[in-house]
Amino acid sequence: MGQSIRIAIAGYGNLGRGVEAAIAKNPDMQLTGIYTRRPPSQLQPRLEATSVYSMEALSGHAGKIDVLILCGGSKEDLPQQGPELAALFNTVDSFDTHARIPEYFASVNGPALANRKTALISAGWDPGMFSINRVYGEALLPDGATYTFWGKGLSQGHSDAIRRIPGVAGGVQYTVPVQDALEEVRQGSRPTLTTRQKHTRDCFVVLEPGADPEAVKNAIVTMPHYFDEYDTTVSFITEEALRREHNAMPHGGLVIRTGNTTEENTQVVEYSLKLGSNPEFTSSILVAYARAVHRMHQAGQYGAKTVFDVAPGLLSAKSPEQLRAEDL
Amino acid sequence: MGQSIRIAIAGYGNLGRGVEAAIAKNPDMQLTGIYTRRPPSQLQPRLEATSVYSMEALSGHAGKIDVLILCGGSKEDLPQQGPELAALFNTVDSFDTHARIPEYFASVNGPALANRKTALISAGWDPGMFSINRVYGEALLPDGATYTFWGKGLSQGHSDAIRRIPGVAGGVQYTVPVQDALEEVRQGSRPTLTTRQKHTRDCFVVLEPGADPEAVKNAIVTMPHYFDEYDTTVSFITEEALRREHNAMPHGGLVIRTGNTTEENTQVVEYSLKLGSNPEFTSSILVAYARAVHRMHQAGQYGAKTVFDVAPGLLSAKSPEQLRAEDL
Repeated sequence: MGQSIRIAIAGYGNLGRGVEAAIAKNPDMQLTGIYTRRPPSQLQPRLEATSVYSMEALSGHAGKIDVLILCGGSKEDLPQQGPELAALFNTVDSFDTHARIPEYFASVNGPALANRKTALISAGWDPGMFSINRVYGEALLPDGATYTFWGKGLSQGHSDAIRRIPGVAGGVQYTVPVQDALEEVRQGSRPTLTTRQKHTRDCFVVLEPGADPEAVKNAIVTMPHYFDEYDTTVSFITEEALRREHNAMPHGGLVIRTGNTTEENTQVVEYSLKLGSNPEFTSSILVAYARAVHRMHQAGQYGAKTVFDVAPGLLSAKSPEQLRAEDL
Repeated sequence: MGQSIRIAIAGYGNLGRGVEAAIAKNPDMQLTGIYTRRPPSQLQPRLEATSVYSMEALSGHAGKIDVLILCGGSKEDLPQQGPELAALFNTVDSFDTHARIPEYFASVNGPALANRKTALISAGWDPGMFSINRVYGEALLPDGATYTFWGKGLSQGHSDAIRRIPGVAGGVQYTVPVQDALEEVRQGSRPTLTTRQKHTRDCFVVLEPGADPEAVKNAIVTMPHYFDEYDTTVSFITEEALRREHNAMPHGGLVIRTGNTTEENTQVVEYSLKLGSNPEFTSSILVAYARAVHRMHQAGQYGAKTVFDVAPGLLSAKSPEQLRAEDL
């Protein structure tokens, strides 16, 4: 057993909290500190013993951290932090704006290469484990079709969109795969499915006093991009029911590849997740990839990387010999 | 588009036939020939244009083959062919005697390293894709448990065992996961399951004229290792029904990892296969790994490798840029 891997956390929201919990589950790692933009004394880490520092202290701690896990958001935080911090640290992040990944990759790759650092971007489950399964599926069944379904799960972006509507005091939105579509896909017939045919959206909304339910409902179901292309249900609930029944962050989904190896034979590969907590599972993935990043850096593999570049064995705390004997 | 990858096949049973079919689905590859121990003129390849050679011709063709896919069996063929051919070619095989993998790895690693070749052993779906999912599951959810279920599918080894019983003219055996056990595992309670609780075995048997059904049935259900630890059903059918209803080679199974990221939150990851043809899917995997082996060899990564050493992106015909833009 070598020295333990020294991990630090930049940003302490749901994801940062999850990373703190995940490090405690991995005996070959230690958490050296949490870095925050808030006043450090305001933070309450899970473990009292965890050190909390101001984000400004990071650059002075470069020699004490093997991998820095960036737990900021993809919209505001990572586009700035990713390139900056990849010049100083080996990093892992969960950048998840799919359309901007090539641009983000390039912005991180330059500083990482120039400073001989390893920066893994866009880890998590989608992008991340789902992406890996899309690639495996395509490679193993080149004559086929890939389907990604999300849910049942709470969508943060859609819940936020509901809460911005006038008259809404609170609310959550669940994305739900359409069972008939799922079953059709599993039969291997490679159906063409519209957005509406794949998912429904279920909203649970608390109204402000005096708000008009019909107006709120109409504002939701007609909202462009977010709801207008889906079959959306809106249920009105009390503030108390929202707190009691909708306080968890479950999510999940499926990646299905169906294909033919010959005309006669259809093959179906399915990868599915049922997550009690979406941020905690994402965090757990980031921590496993931190182990891989540490090893890739030690092997001299610098620059920006994605999950496609990481051999499965690098994620495991086991040695290659042990993996071959126990897991193959 | 670079030069196409030149693949050859050693051994032409179900697996070799599947590899021939799979190469035709991958436009960046070409099949240079099939090598057989039988008289080459006796072989009927899928495509008339495919060249068939005697196995002895192989060593003279080293410069014309980028990757040789070994399609022999794990019991007799590969222990000898694997080390011999890894001295001359980059190879991919499906060695699947789990308990002997470390020994086989060592026997292939020496000659491959000494001759600067890359030899990927034990590809397929188990060992192979199931192994990868066991490793990912453990790494992402270190506080958890892994379950592998096989079936519903035709087991070649168990079908062979039935056919060796006196009085049996023909027969097949299907391995079937126990649904209640599966559902219990999916709940995340990490049950301890005995062999009997996980799978049942369904046998369909054709009797020889005058054979005693009770004696045959008893010989099957009490057979050590193969059947005695399972709930086994035996159905007697006609020769014609066997040919008509049991001539396919379906298989599949599931790898499930359940675990907790915190005390409150359970996470479930499930990878499942429903295969119309077991050998064709295995072959398709071997061909995708041949692409990876070719690239690893070009990058100077010599010696024996397993699926744990192969980054997912190496399997894909797409470039890293394309993968990041389209699949991440």
